[in-house]
Amino acid sequence: MESSQMTESNNNGVGESNTSLLASCWWEQLCSAMDRLNCLVVLTGFTEKMAKIARDDKRRVAHSLKFGLALTLVSVFYYVTPLFNGWGNSTIWAVITVLFVMEFTVGATLSKGIYRVLATLAAGLLAVGAHLVARLCGEEGEPVVLAVLVFLVASAATFSRFIPEVKARHEYGVIIFILTFALVTVSSYRVEDLIEFAHERLTTVAVGVATCLLTTVFVFPIWAGEDLHELTAGNLDKLAEFLEGMESEYFGDHSSCENLEAKPFFKVYKGVLSSKVREDSLSTFAKWEPIHGKFRFRHPWNQYQKLGALCRQCASSMEALASCVITLKKSQYPEANPELSLKIGATCAAMSSHSAKALRGLSLTVRTMTKPSPINNDMSTATKAASDFRTEFSEDVALLQVMHVAIIASLLSDIVIQIKRITESTNNLARLASFKNPESSRGAVVINIEDRC
Amino acid sequence: MESSQMTESNNNGVGESNTSLLASCWWEQLCSAMDRLNCLVVLTGFTEKMAKIARDDKRRVAHSLKFGLALTLVSVFYYVTPLFNGWGNSTIWAVITVLFVMEFTVGATLSKGIYRVLATLAAGLLAVGAHLVARLCGEEGEPVVLAVLVFLVASAATFSRFIPEVKARHEYGVIIFILTFALVTVSSYRVEDLIEFAHERLTTVAVGVATCLLTTVFVFPIWAGEDLHELTAGNLDKLAEFLEGMESEYFGDHSSCENLEAKPFFKVYKGVLSSKVREDSLSTFAKWEPIHGKFRFRHPWNQYQKLGALCRQCASSMEALASCVITLKKSQYPEANPELSLKIGATCAAMSSHSAKALRGLSLTVRTMTKPSPINNDMSTATKAASDFRTEFSEDVALLQVMHVAIIASLLSDIVIQIKRITESTNNLARLASFKNPESSRGAVVINIEDRC
Repeated sequence: MESSQMTESNNNGVGESNTSLLASCWWEQLCSAMDRLNCLVVLTGFTEKMAKIARDDKRRVAHSLKFGLALTLVSVFYYVTPLFNGWGNSTIWAVITVLFVMEFTVGATLSKGIYRVLATLAAGLLAVGAHLVARLCGEEGEPVVLAVLVFLVASAATFSRFIPEVKARHEYGVIIFILTFALVTVSSYRVEDLIEFAHERLTTVAVGVATCLLTTVFVFPIWAGEDLHELTAGNLDKLAEFLEGMESEYFGDHSSCENLEAKPFFKVYKGVLSSKVREDSLSTFAKWEPIHGKFRFRHPWNQYQKLGALCRQCASSMEALASCVITLKKSQYPEANPELSLKIGATCAAMSSHSAKALRGLSLTVRTMTKPSPINNDMSTATKAASDFRTEFSEDVALLQVMHVAIIASLLSDIVIQIKRITESTNNLARLASFKNPESSRGAVVINIEDRC
Repeated sequence: MESSQMTESNNNGVGESNTSLLASCWWEQLCSAMDRLNCLVVLTGFTEKMAKIARDDKRRVAHSLKFGLALTLVSVFYYVTPLFNGWGNSTIWAVITVLFVMEFTVGATLSKGIYRVLATLAAGLLAVGAHLVARLCGEEGEPVVLAVLVFLVASAATFSRFIPEVKARHEYGVIIFILTFALVTVSSYRVEDLIEFAHERLTTVAVGVATCLLTTVFVFPIWAGEDLHELTAGNLDKLAEFLEGMESEYFGDHSSCENLEAKPFFKVYKGVLSSKVREDSLSTFAKWEPIHGKFRFRHPWNQYQKLGALCRQCASSMEALASCVITLKKSQYPEANPELSLKIGATCAAMSSHSAKALRGLSLTVRTMTKPSPINNDMSTATKAASDFRTEFSEDVALLQVMHVAIIASLLSDIVIQIKRITESTNNLARLASFKNPESSRGAVVINIEDRC
């Protein structure tokens, strides 16, 4: 279609003798048209993707614009001559500061900004000390002493990054510390007035941090606390969604049980399981944030982490339930005891639906920040159904006893099948990576291999 | 003990009249002694902790020293006058480069170094272009055009960090790009010879990257590929450890089943479940690394990720098994059908022990890089036990059918109990955060709450 359109416009003023030229022209035009079309397709796909990213969370656009704004604001210091003459080339440090301090949420920017200032201060003081010590060693000794000090401090600070507590909370501070220490120490060798230099550096860093803070707090602020609050309510909803799905698709009267693994509700608990990292970082940053919106001073952010841990534990039990459902669905047998099956099925449906309702209620409680109603009927109905099942079912002792071992054996035989797949995959690796033959390796290895054959 | 020692030395030349002075002296000395002791305790604890971190992985010490070495090497450029005169103040950029490029493994340093050079090059070219455009707008317009360009490029680049592909692989490159673009554009306003300035910047960055690469590759190199290889073998061992533990502590003849949750083997699969992030990053970096040790050109690094995914799937089944064991252990009933129980128990023990042996064999195969023996007796024994169990047990149809629903009901009633805990935790949150009373919120919320009461 596109090529025919392009060739039509290609027939004016071309002699019959230069057919080869015509062909080559035609070919070139076709190519360029295809290229343009290709470009258009790629561009449309790209634009759609960008639009989706922006639509999914509009705050992303706001953050990008805020970042641009903060960077432009500090650049202006460089263009305004009176300001520039006061600070000179150090202005560049305000730009670097914005780049490393500006974060998505207010809490993250605030904590990074404070780390930036404190680490610069500490490293600057230490560097001035190092400079004074080095001066004592004379002109020849000065660079040697400075180099040795840089080596020692950088090695020690790098090693401190392996301490779990430092890695989790203060890694950014340590990087800034090494950076400032190395730069001030090295510069001290050639800079005349070191105190002036350090003071200038600290001022520009402070200006950079202040610009970031003002931009994050006053232009479309994004609060880590709000995100954490939303995440917690969302997790409760996800747990409810799984139970609602189980009730309608598996325990319900019209349940088909077909293709259960492919249903979206059947995987929804996985999102809860993987929420820990995000929850921890949001909770760390939320603690830095000032009072805003619905959140007062000393809002109990730790409680969100406790609630999150319980949600993940529940999601983990859901995973066990899902695994069992899948494992046991593979071994479908004809109805042997329909009466008992129906009875237990009804109990399961009751437990699921009431638990799901209770969870939806809790999520609403969190979302609207209203006190939960003191009488939670759904929760007590679900708890009663659970305890009833245990009492009734425990009457059939023989059944339970065998059930115990049988289910475990079923799950274990599933594991055996998976290990078989692992064996095949390892064999593939051995083939692709050309592992050597066992005969060629001597000593302990051979003994070990013989041992297991 | 310490205080009595300290008071003895305090009795010389003190008149009887100034008892209060004596007492205050005595108190001060006691305090300082306590302080010193406290310091000593803290210091000993700290030293022990550091020693443990170093002992756990000696390469941490090597990395710290290498980092110090690289930083000292680039600082030397600043002290050697002929070199300094060639580069001037740009030398500082070599220091910054080392700080942001030097990583634990060779592959990570190599990839970051290449990103650093490419991003600097691209941003530098773009910034020179921006400078030429701005010049056209006259002296008044230049800073305005530059500021607008910085705003646009920084906003667009920041937005690109939200694209999942960019976030996963190129985030570091984007940060360096913004940094270089902003710095060169801003500087272009006051620097006389911009090409010279950009060239100087690029040279110093290249020197920084080269220093990092030489240090990582030639001084005690730490390879991501080796770590990945070790991680894979370790994961296979962990899976085997769980099965060995289950065999001896749960299915075995002398098994006690007591306090199973507290045993280390019972949680070992969790390490496999959480290995994905580390595996992915190691595999990304391993692909950057040149030939080294046992690893040839085009070593199949992707295969490690496939094997890892299978291991995690197996670990997830183990988690389901562990959940079931715990859930069912709570409902211990008297032996009702000892014969059948014993039989299934023996099958379980056989499956566990043979699977564990097969896994140990695979881990040895990976560790020694020898081809696995073609006849894997353990694997076939385990598979046979698994299929035997399925055939034998399927004869008792009625039992299986009920088992199916009963186990699911058991797991579900466990979930109900956990949701009860979640409810309590949400109530705590509502109390601590002083959620408002439902009466005060009108409209949809009230209806919803009434709906569930």
